[in-house]
Amino acid sequence: MDFELAKRLSQPNTTKIILCVMDGLGGLPREATWRSEMEQADIPNLDRLAKHAEVGLTVPVGPGITPGSGPGHLALFGYDPYVYDIGRGVLEAVGIDFELGPDDVAARGNFCTLADDGTISDRRAGRVATDISAKLVERLREIKLDGAEVLVEPVREHRFVLVLRGPGLGDAVSTTDPQRVGLTPIPAAGADVASQKTAALVNEFVAKAHAVLANAAPANGLVLRGFAKYPQLPQFPEIWGLRAAALAVYPMYRGLAKLAGMKALACPGGMEEQIRVVREKWDEFDYFFVHYKKTDAAGEDGDFERKCHALAEFDQYVPALLDLGADVLMIAGDHSTPALMAAHSWHPVPFLLHSRYCREGGAEHFNEQECLKGSLGRFPAVDVMPLAMAHAMRFEKYGA
Amino acid sequence: MDFELAKRLSQPNTTKIILCVMDGLGGLPREATWRSEMEQADIPNLDRLAKHAEVGLTVPVGPGITPGSGPGHLALFGYDPYVYDIGRGVLEAVGIDFELGPDDVAARGNFCTLADDGTISDRRAGRVATDISAKLVERLREIKLDGAEVLVEPVREHRFVLVLRGPGLGDAVSTTDPQRVGLTPIPAAGADVASQKTAALVNEFVAKAHAVLANAAPANGLVLRGFAKYPQLPQFPEIWGLRAAALAVYPMYRGLAKLAGMKALACPGGMEEQIRVVREKWDEFDYFFVHYKKTDAAGEDGDFERKCHALAEFDQYVPALLDLGADVLMIAGDHSTPALMAAHSWHPVPFLLHSRYCREGGAEHFNEQECLKGSLGRFPAVDVMPLAMAHAMRFEKYGA
Repeated sequence: MDFELAKRLSQPNTTKIILCVMDGLGGLPREATWRSEMEQADIPNLDRLAKHAEVGLTVPVGPGITPGSGPGHLALFGYDPYVYDIGRGVLEAVGIDFELGPDDVAARGNFCTLADDGTISDRRAGRVATDISAKLVERLREIKLDGAEVLVEPVREHRFVLVLRGPGLGDAVSTTDPQRVGLTPIPAAGADVASQKTAALVNEFVAKAHAVLANAAPANGLVLRGFAKYPQLPQFPEIWGLRAAALAVYPMYRGLAKLAGMKALACPGGMEEQIRVVREKWDEFDYFFVHYKKTDAAGEDGDFERKCHALAEFDQYVPALLDLGADVLMIAGDHSTPALMAAHSWHPVPFLLHSRYCREGGAEHFNEQECLKGSLGRFPAVDVMPLAMAHAMRFEKYGA
Repeated sequence: MDFELAKRLSQPNTTKIILCVMDGLGGLPREATWRSEMEQADIPNLDRLAKHAEVGLTVPVGPGITPGSGPGHLALFGYDPYVYDIGRGVLEAVGIDFELGPDDVAARGNFCTLADDGTISDRRAGRVATDISAKLVERLREIKLDGAEVLVEPVREHRFVLVLRGPGLGDAVSTTDPQRVGLTPIPAAGADVASQKTAALVNEFVAKAHAVLANAAPANGLVLRGFAKYPQLPQFPEIWGLRAAALAVYPMYRGLAKLAGMKALACPGGMEEQIRVVREKWDEFDYFFVHYKKTDAAGEDGDFERKCHALAEFDQYVPALLDLGADVLMIAGDHSTPALMAAHSWHPVPFLLHSRYCREGGAEHFNEQECLKGSLGRFPAVDVMPLAMAHAMRFEKYGA
């Protein structure tokens, strides 16, 4: 919804809202049984909750659109993912807890293998091992540019982050990745004066990097994409009038929450610790975003059984989540990650909202098929926040 | 839908449309039985109708948005409630059958109690009795201002309407209500030159009123809000090509209908008389808006049983409504008013459309859960009018 309207309707209250995101929640049925992960998994607590909750399916971005983690979460926080598009470079930086400043342009980097004729023969340098990659990053850090500081951070395997730090840099810079083997890396180009300055620095960096990496085959080249500055998002606490905390183990989700203006609380130990920290910080915040990664990780690995186990593990924490006594408890997913596809997908995502003001639907369990019968039907994920505000009695009446 | 498109598609016909609005129709289940008012109520005629009608749930304004009566009705008449926002002052004036002219700025007034230090100690003056309030209004009528005529009308208990009538008055005037006890009333301020003129008159009025009311404790002060001029709405008969009549007992709903360009027909006697007047005026109009208030009144009072009775009472009129022989008969609500909440709510509202061209869904009864199974699903209330036009064979084909 329009943020000005949200601010106008928002009214103070003492109610608490919890959003649990089970990453990659939705799945697909296996042909052998025609049961999805959620249908197969042993999740009695979620099933019980679904009967008297408002349930439905969220459409993360749009019909047929498979979201990345950024848009998937931002939509649940109330941001229209078509309007608020976080650059890949920023997401990678945020994902390794790198603090981006206002003079920084970040890019996602991949080591690649260059053939003798300068064309790319492997776009991921044989998925070079993380420790070797880290040593190569140290070599890249020695590169000096006139006009910007060069910061390079390893991520994992062939992936790294490049940050150029300097005044007057733009981020409308084209990729250097030709996206196919047999082609040479493309020179970066800028769409405006500030970005042309960045592009010139990028091209100088690439040339020096290729010299530095000459004897480092298979990782003797690199490509860069997703150039982006730290975005100025409207801040979640100001839009909704909620003091907001994020409880996530993985840096990328903490980073996303910080972009939105939430306070990221340390909880490396997983769900047990996340719930404990929510309880400890109960009085300091009105909204808690709790992130659970294992469902997505298993889905991405194409491991149907492990995804079922991840669902069952989360289910065991549901009584403790309910015990916290939030006025609104939501169980959602940022997107589907069917084990069958071993990847994110576009399919709508099961969603559940528990409060005192729930209207029942016909759902008897918490899964893709039963959520179709719920009182919320299929609806855009950006509508989750206004719904939560209403159930928390934090929106005043519209019009007389 | 876009009004220009509506005008383009609208074609003459002799068909008749009836919209019955059961105010505050939707509810919530009581935990004891998990049955809502509509599930509990004895409404055999509506249940029978629902089986072969197109049913669904309307979203009055947007997800999580609790509408006032104004936006709730305007949406059912086809007006986007985000675009057409009727000021509180106008709604109050319209609600007491006050005829607003083009030079008028109306405001909602509340008598309040002022402590010795000038701060508000009771925002509703102990809900001062209506007859006392009427006498105080007579005192306020004696106030003279230079530049505008002062018109004051009692409403009920602590509420009244102030109308300033004069040339060149604007309505972008801020409230004088601090919204909390322990604070003094705020001086009004205008956002433009014309509204600054109004604000100055308002502040002069308030000062004189406080002098006039000095010995009238607990109603020794007042606050004013919702300053608004009579809005120029696109007119319903021109948009849809329908001669439209409103049959409502309460002035506010007649007033809303008049804002939209409908003809308000007198029918103080309630449903029996409303149906009789529809029959008498059958040939003079194409569209009849019939308003039923008792469902909302019981819901607002938090009286679950009385809301059930109000539903059952309406149900007894359904055969007579069907006997009128309209081509399209709709049963709708402007918003939900669950007895559980004793207030308007954001929950979608059961809706039923009966015509010769209905596609059945799976609904077996007329209530919140069964309407989920209907052929219309959940849909925005502004789509009711295009649907009605289609079923009345009053829209021509779009495109060749």
